[in-house]
Amino acid sequence: MATTTESQPGATDREPEVRDDPEAVTPPTDDLSDDERALLVDNLRYALDGRWRATRDTVRELSARGDLLPDPSRTLDEARARILGEMRELAQSGFATAGFAADHGGTGDVGASITAIEMLGYADLSLMVKSGVQWGLFGGAVENLGTARHHDRYVAGIIDLDLLGCFAMTETGHGSNVQALETTATYDPQTREFIIDSPTPSSRKDYIGGAAQHATTAAVFAQLITAGPGEEPESRGVHCFVVPIRDSDGNDLPGVTTSDCGYKGGLPGVDNGRIMFDHVRVPAENLLNRYADVEADGTYTSPIENPNRRFFTMLGTLIRGRVSVAATAGAAGRKALTLAGRYGLIRKQFEAPDADNEILVMDYLGHQRKLLPLIAKSYAIAFAQNELTEELHELQSVRDDASDDEVDDGRQRELESAAAGLKAYATWHASQAINVSREACGGAGYLDENQISLIRGDIDVFTTFEGDNTVLTQLVAKELLSAYAEDVRGLSAGGWVRFIATMARDVVVEKTAVRQVVQTLLEGSDEDTEKSNLTDRGTQLRLFRNREDHLIRTCAQRLRRANDDDNDPFEVFNNAQDHLLKVGRVHTERIVLEAFVQAIDECDSRSAAQLLGKVCDLFVYSALEDDLAWFLMHRHVSVERAKAIRRGVNELCLELRPHLRSLVDAFGIPEELLAAPMLEHG
Amino acid sequence: MATTTESQPGATDREPEVRDDPEAVTPPTDDLSDDERALLVDNLRYALDGRWRATRDTVRELSARGDLLPDPSRTLDEARARILGEMRELAQSGFATAGFAADHGGTGDVGASITAIEMLGYADLSLMVKSGVQWGLFGGAVENLGTARHHDRYVAGIIDLDLLGCFAMTETGHGSNVQALETTATYDPQTREFIIDSPTPSSRKDYIGGAAQHATTAAVFAQLITAGPGEEPESRGVHCFVVPIRDSDGNDLPGVTTSDCGYKGGLPGVDNGRIMFDHVRVPAENLLNRYADVEADGTYTSPIENPNRRFFTMLGTLIRGRVSVAATAGAAGRKALTLAGRYGLIRKQFEAPDADNEILVMDYLGHQRKLLPLIAKSYAIAFAQNELTEELHELQSVRDDASDDEVDDGRQRELESAAAGLKAYATWHASQAINVSREACGGAGYLDENQISLIRGDIDVFTTFEGDNTVLTQLVAKELLSAYAEDVRGLSAGGWVRFIATMARDVVVEKTAVRQVVQTLLEGSDEDTEKSNLTDRGTQLRLFRNREDHLIRTCAQRLRRANDDDNDPFEVFNNAQDHLLKVGRVHTERIVLEAFVQAIDECDSRSAAQLLGKVCDLFVYSALEDDLAWFLMHRHVSVERAKAIRRGVNELCLELRPHLRSLVDAFGIPEELLAAPMLEHG
Repeated sequence: MATTTESQPGATDREPEVRDDPEAVTPPTDDLSDDERALLVDNLRYALDGRWRATRDTVRELSARGDLLPDPSRTLDEARARILGEMRELAQSGFATAGFAADHGGTGDVGASITAIEMLGYADLSLMVKSGVQWGLFGGAVENLGTARHHDRYVAGIIDLDLLGCFAMTETGHGSNVQALETTATYDPQTREFIIDSPTPSSRKDYIGGAAQHATTAAVFAQLITAGPGEEPESRGVHCFVVPIRDSDGNDLPGVTTSDCGYKGGLPGVDNGRIMFDHVRVPAENLLNRYADVEADGTYTSPIENPNRRFFTMLGTLIRGRVSVAATAGAAGRKALTLAGRYGLIRKQFEAPDADNEILVMDYLGHQRKLLPLIAKSYAIAFAQNELTEELHELQSVRDDASDDEVDDGRQRELESAAAGLKAYATWHASQAINVSREACGGAGYLDENQISLIRGDIDVFTTFEGDNTVLTQLVAKELLSAYAEDVRGLSAGGWVRFIATMARDVVVEKTAVRQVVQTLLEGSDEDTEKSNLTDRGTQLRLFRNREDHLIRTCAQRLRRANDDDNDPFEVFNNAQDHLLKVGRVHTERIVLEAFVQAIDECDSRSAAQLLGKVCDLFVYSALEDDLAWFLMHRHVSVERAKAIRRGVNELCLELRPHLRSLVDAFGIPEELLAAPMLEHG
Repeated sequence: MATTTESQPGATDREPEVRDDPEAVTPPTDDLSDDERALLVDNLRYALDGRWRATRDTVRELSARGDLLPDPSRTLDEARARILGEMRELAQSGFATAGFAADHGGTGDVGASITAIEMLGYADLSLMVKSGVQWGLFGGAVENLGTARHHDRYVAGIIDLDLLGCFAMTETGHGSNVQALETTATYDPQTREFIIDSPTPSSRKDYIGGAAQHATTAAVFAQLITAGPGEEPESRGVHCFVVPIRDSDGNDLPGVTTSDCGYKGGLPGVDNGRIMFDHVRVPAENLLNRYADVEADGTYTSPIENPNRRFFTMLGTLIRGRVSVAATAGAAGRKALTLAGRYGLIRKQFEAPDADNEILVMDYLGHQRKLLPLIAKSYAIAFAQNELTEELHELQSVRDDASDDEVDDGRQRELESAAAGLKAYATWHASQAINVSREACGGAGYLDENQISLIRGDIDVFTTFEGDNTVLTQLVAKELLSAYAEDVRGLSAGGWVRFIATMARDVVVEKTAVRQVVQTLLEGSDEDTEKSNLTDRGTQLRLFRNREDHLIRTCAQRLRRANDDDNDPFEVFNNAQDHLLKVGRVHTERIVLEAFVQAIDECDSRSAAQLLGKVCDLFVYSALEDDLAWFLMHRHVSVERAKAIRRGVNELCLELRPHLRSLVDAFGIPEELLAAPMLEHG
């Protein structure tokens, strides 16, 4: 598939204007000619599609088939077989090559590979998840944790599906706390093998996509136990091993017991299962040994001395899965909002006064207030996601070209933090957007033929897998508060608090170099946010930044109480947990706003940029409204301004209402994938 | 089944103490002996079970069978057949008799019938919904809109399922706006028949439970068209007709075309379908003629002259369905919270400092904050629901014994408003509680074997059916603002606003006679809410009441702008819609709080009452926290108090944490219905 990343739309279909008239207002869509509206939608989509717009178009073309949509009449077996079949078709079209380096048999375009996976979310989330497991997680583990011997042996088969794999990290007893996994991989120097074992019921691998049926091989995360000459066997922490689990007839291999997680809240096409290992032997070379190895005599070696750092470095390379999940949640939310938005534009209910016609439900303020703020937030998240994908692409591309030492460690930590924060923010948003969309379509929304109920079932687990949202949000806050200090990760809650409490200096978080556009806007706005207009972008940025700074500062103060001998560190941590979670959320929201601001700045169509500006206003106003109690309580907004914010949301909804159709059309979801009988009759 | 309503628990297992020591604090459950804890749970359950506790126990016994739980491996046909089979078993045990008057072949205990249906929600929501359609909606229409000829002919068959019915109200084009239904029933004086017809695609009956497969007869809501001698045929508004739709082999009768809504977001055991009528003739006596009739010559007669009043009187008798749906949503929420609560008490994650063990997830404040406020709100809603059921029982029992004129019209209007408000409040709460519970159980929560994901799919439509929640919430506000004025119902939005705007007097809503306990508490509290302690119940009541009064007053002021000639009445209405919706919500929340206060007052166990007091505090504090921006903006709480509210939620969570198991055990869900593998291994 095409992976060009720098294509520009043909000059013929672009609006050449520059933003020379800041006072000009985009007229409501109703007042635009068909051509003007098409151009506006095209320009909005150009902005939303971002750097990998060519990839998006390729997948749009590939997936614009109604028969790709999930069919709830399929049995579990049929659904699973169907998705595997669809993956085979994708594989044949070269879908998976972008995710692997050129010298491993791929084309080495990480950003394209994530974007492509995301686009599958418009078709069938089971297809996205199972593809993500095979190519992103299993393939990603081999690609990023393995070395040449693994790349040579496995990557081609992973790309073309000759080798079906699964990603066996989570255990029944451990999901979030990966460092405490119980599966063991004990090195036997006599045979130069690792013995993979599940010593306890809670060490069972669980919820593993592909483990129930299709995967013949697993990337197994296990405690590596080995002893060098004269040493006692000792755990060296969690490492990843390639372990065959099934023969070609689908039978469990000796010592392996798989089972089926069965029916779930959604994602019927993904065969989640469980794996128990009873002293299963694999050759020593099955250790994915990029970051650590065991010599023939059992001596453990690693270029990274600190075990915590080693563990988190390994995990960090697997971040692609998390980024893909965030991206796809965004796509799923956009699809549900498109379906609900379009339905609201044909569904009528209750008569208008002095008129024979009934009122379009989208003309009710209450309905606008349900959907438009979520659409605005979807725009914001889409822009932030594009930046995240791009940063991941840049970092992983650098890494592939250079020795590990050259990678900017701080930049990697920030990327991981941003990925964690956006994954939580985007998946919670998607859940909410899809729930609201379902309800906004009434009974029609509950019928699977109209798709939203299916998306709702599929998306639910996105807040859980690839990192529980609460844990991830907390992670963001912890990283901020400890200013990405080395050796903090892996500490227990109490240990972490003690670290914070004893940090000599004041926690003043140094934010990443402020982007130019934000800097300019900040400089152009009054430091006293009450003095400037709330539609002033600089003021909006200040409000978000001030909230974050305030929360970080006060949270650090609270945590420092752990210094007091009378206080139990865990209790200090726990009592501040809601505060900590809020730090994580508002930090991410600030990043999301800044990405939106950047995207508007980069939009070269005046009418599109103006409309995006209004959408950004609505995003800001409703984010402020959602957190208004905090802003009032901490005197960051006055009562008068608070009231203006509530009014402003209403006014922006009314103002954007005529553009609603353009706004959802710009998501660029193939029409074939929006098939829904409710959109035919209203 | 037993329908005794006044059973009292045996003296032996009740705590005889009176609440003589207001300072005493219930010790944490951990400090209680097993017997003390059992007694506490028993007393809490006694309070929660309310007047129809005997009915609850009967259904508990009847339903304590694991094989009643939904099984996702069933095909749609199997699931539907299974639920029908379970209904037949229920029918044999006399389950449905309570819902019908003694002289129609029932036992005439409305409250017991609603409570029994609610309790089915602990087993399988498909069973509850299909039972509710047959006995509550279809049976309720015949019972309440029909006369002796219908009771004699149909009720026995409805009770024992010889006659399977459906409730054909909603149409593809009209859900909320029932008055605008398009199906026609035209009287033909030649043959003394009604001709039932679906004149347009949008007049198709849609989403009708039972219409896809099992129902042989429909209660069809249609515009009654007739002409008396010398008159032109004219629509007399929506009336209900008994219309056979299928023969005993399941074939559509001539002129009837049914179809299947197919797969849905949940409720697979309910066969929702569609019906089109092509000039189907039914005998004149099939009109359910309690409130209107057509004489042989076509003359239309009704004891209620005003068509609007007639329509709403008919609808009002059908309120049982709405009340049952609210009650069941409460049950579903409690079940999900019980599963998640119990899981949180065995699931551990991340190590405690200085300890080998990992921390119970329920010991994290973040986790407590997810579940405990929802549990507290579930208590509040359960008490309000008990009152609602009781009031419905009283009113419908009175009506059955007396002529219609004796029914207190105002009391009926208030009941309908309370039912609308609580239905919306309880079903939104249930959706949220179930979503949060799923997420709180992580991957385990997503597996159908652990039930929450199934409940999540089933409950989703509860916010839509039996009245869209937004429409219902608005209805509550409109009734309040027009002080239940006659002839306001049925007006368009604009017409209603004009009415409000021209009301001579100030809108000062006269609340229902204040209950004694509330009056006493109000009198004992300072009028200035800032001056008294926030744990003071009177102060809490004042805050809720003041908020409601403030919102009603200011909303009326806004709406009065419609008096101004420059303003379009619909625009005035629409611009205030968010305000109006808020009025509806806060009014219901005030009613819910007062029901909680009443229940605590009536609790004769000191330790249970004390614990309920803490639960009520948490309900109040988190309700205040959820709406803190409003309270601050309108200066009903100070910034200092706002901070105390946030802290208070945390403190109450910590305080109630040791009681969590008791609090969910008191819901009294049969252990067999809580089967979930995740509760075995954590």
